[in-house]
Amino acid sequence: MITVNPCLPSMPNSYLFAEVARRRKNAEAMHRERRLISLGIGDVSKPLPQAAVRALHAASDEMGAEATLKGYGPAEGYAFLRSAVCAHDYATRGVTIYPEEVFITTGAKETVAQFQWLFDRSCIAAVSDPVYPVYAETNAMAGRAGQWNGQEWERLVYLPCLPENDFMPMPPDQQADIICLCSPNNPTGTVMTRSALEAWVRYARERHALIFFDAAYEAFITDEAIPHSIFEIEGAREVAVEFRSFSKTAGFTGLRCGYLVVPQEVSVPTPDGSPVNLNALWKRHQDTCFNGCSYPIQRAAEATYSPEGQKQCRIVIESYLANAAAIRKGAGAAGLRAYGGINAPYVWVETPGRMPSWDFFDLLLTKGGLVCTPGAGFGPHGEGYVRMTAFATAEDTAEAMDRLLALSGSFPA
Amino acid sequence: MITVNPCLPSMPNSYLFAEVARRRKNAEAMHRERRLISLGIGDVSKPLPQAAVRALHAASDEMGAEATLKGYGPAEGYAFLRSAVCAHDYATRGVTIYPEEVFITTGAKETVAQFQWLFDRSCIAAVSDPVYPVYAETNAMAGRAGQWNGQEWERLVYLPCLPENDFMPMPPDQQADIICLCSPNNPTGTVMTRSALEAWVRYARERHALIFFDAAYEAFITDEAIPHSIFEIEGAREVAVEFRSFSKTAGFTGLRCGYLVVPQEVSVPTPDGSPVNLNALWKRHQDTCFNGCSYPIQRAAEATYSPEGQKQCRIVIESYLANAAAIRKGAGAAGLRAYGGINAPYVWVETPGRMPSWDFFDLLLTKGGLVCTPGAGFGPHGEGYVRMTAFATAEDTAEAMDRLLALSGSFPA
Repeated sequence: MITVNPCLPSMPNSYLFAEVARRRKNAEAMHRERRLISLGIGDVSKPLPQAAVRALHAASDEMGAEATLKGYGPAEGYAFLRSAVCAHDYATRGVTIYPEEVFITTGAKETVAQFQWLFDRSCIAAVSDPVYPVYAETNAMAGRAGQWNGQEWERLVYLPCLPENDFMPMPPDQQADIICLCSPNNPTGTVMTRSALEAWVRYARERHALIFFDAAYEAFITDEAIPHSIFEIEGAREVAVEFRSFSKTAGFTGLRCGYLVVPQEVSVPTPDGSPVNLNALWKRHQDTCFNGCSYPIQRAAEATYSPEGQKQCRIVIESYLANAAAIRKGAGAAGLRAYGGINAPYVWVETPGRMPSWDFFDLLLTKGGLVCTPGAGFGPHGEGYVRMTAFATAEDTAEAMDRLLALSGSFPA
Repeated sequence: MITVNPCLPSMPNSYLFAEVARRRKNAEAMHRERRLISLGIGDVSKPLPQAAVRALHAASDEMGAEATLKGYGPAEGYAFLRSAVCAHDYATRGVTIYPEEVFITTGAKETVAQFQWLFDRSCIAAVSDPVYPVYAETNAMAGRAGQWNGQEWERLVYLPCLPENDFMPMPPDQQADIICLCSPNNPTGTVMTRSALEAWVRYARERHALIFFDAAYEAFITDEAIPHSIFEIEGAREVAVEFRSFSKTAGFTGLRCGYLVVPQEVSVPTPDGSPVNLNALWKRHQDTCFNGCSYPIQRAAEATYSPEGQKQCRIVIESYLANAAAIRKGAGAAGLRAYGGINAPYVWVETPGRMPSWDFFDLLLTKGGLVCTPGAGFGPHGEGYVRMTAFATAEDTAEAMDRLLALSGSFPA
């Protein structure tokens, strides 16, 4: 008899953003006269840079002519894009990454999910808390999280990120084998300092752990002292991989492109102790399970590195950072404490009077027509906060802050 | 200490087509004066239909304008494409499939690989033999294949496809829980009859098994009696899912789009016996692990269903079928027995004098500059054959057959 992987049905019923979308739809149906404003899901509002649009057109024509058609591409991505990544995202920061270490994918979410299967179920996974839910859930699917008790996964190590530690997860006393870090962090909008990252690299080296470093939002870093990559830290090449995405940097949420860096130095043993080169193992996985990211999409990603593309991306990023500043200010005016939003497109807003985050979410949605994301959805230490994203238009962001202010009289003290 | 999933490093060193590419490269380096002709990897030579190219351009412009930008799409794909699939690929054959049962993906290979993780490791998997290697290898990655003994996976059930049974796998006496069928078959180029499919549906219902039906090549079926979909068989909705692809039907190998149909009726228990709706489970998986196929690519796929797109696809398919006929004829003229190629873009050619398939592959490559794919790479019962694809240009196919004929004097009897 066929049976399902028991780890999957044990998951909470719905993915966070699917639940947000469901409540949003209900609220829309009840108040058809009012336009909802969403600072909820982190989706972009600015169009694709024109440099990328032009590259899409050119690649589409190539696909339509026999002489220039591109069929199956390399599973690891085209050399032109892997080289551009090395030159623009790493060499510019003094970091040497080789094209053979870069794997082009269809996005960070997809990559995180698939990368999980490379590791044994017995590994202990640690996640920043709160964090993008995909880290906890894909570890759970891979059998490493134990049971969901309604609030948290029993076998997952949560690394609390709170005002007390400037929202920086710190190495625990206990053993963790897989460590999921995200800086700039989604959802708190805060960053990890160089010394915090150094502490993690030390921990990983001592404990034979592997760091999954999510740098999807590095382009939003404004503070020059903050590392953009885990590979800016000495010793990281043996103990870390890095996930990146074109989604927020270049408006690719609907196009789908990202990459994973796996340095040649990472060696991970099998449970019986034979060393395995992780780069080679992932290459083998990709050869078998993936036929490469769409060619026109890879050309569009390459175009974001052109001088014109870089300029266009920068303008968009600045505009989102301006929104983040407006949200910080607006939250303050409404009497709410806000964190993040300086080196990231997310603002982490404390709920008034310690209100549960889903309650505050419902209040903003039903009374103000304002969509955010409840912090509890990002992990147990996300309770008491909501996430507001800076990806709406400037007009919508301003209107959202007006609505927040108007509602603030009804907030509990 | 972090450890890798022990199922992965136990895999044979390289993926079949990576090994073919490696030997091809060596041969190219040794004979720089000679142009290689590839009837090897099943990659298309005809460009994307112009209807799809036009759709790509239009969607690229949408992505470049604020009013029409598409961000994150639904994980299951856009309704416009799911509806088009139901109307054009199923309703036209009298089969009712609902849009909620269609999941748009980035291609059949990716989908097969990810779908494996839904099932328990204890399940027994059966694969047509020979078959597209991804079925065996992704079952192995998911822990269901046991050890690789150098020729086969010890725990996999192989369903021999030989001239004696018209290359149609038949239900075994033993229990199999996951059954991977592919018709038209890659690599043999043969098809399964209605009665063979009925026998499998009966088996699956009696044994509580699930059929993974790969119909990626259904557009090449010329015999009107042959089903294009497992869902043309009564009772299949409870026991089958179907993988499809735009790769060969519409020249999408480099664009990446496919879909999976999971009927609402499929229920699979957990190991402790609780029933799980497979459609809902896969939806949950996709919500967590996937952000949808690229929007412009989905628009291009939709355009292949337009009257113009259908006409353009048909012309290309007919041209590949003409190549297949030329290969059958050319193989015969060279004294080789050939199968398939009438309802499929593949011809399955018996090696001369029972020569091992990698040896015949090397002979054609080094002496004739002709690339095919050795049958042994598709499973133990592929030994003694090579696969030739009909996806090259008509000129290259003709030239390949001339070279085959010229070499035939040196074939062993």
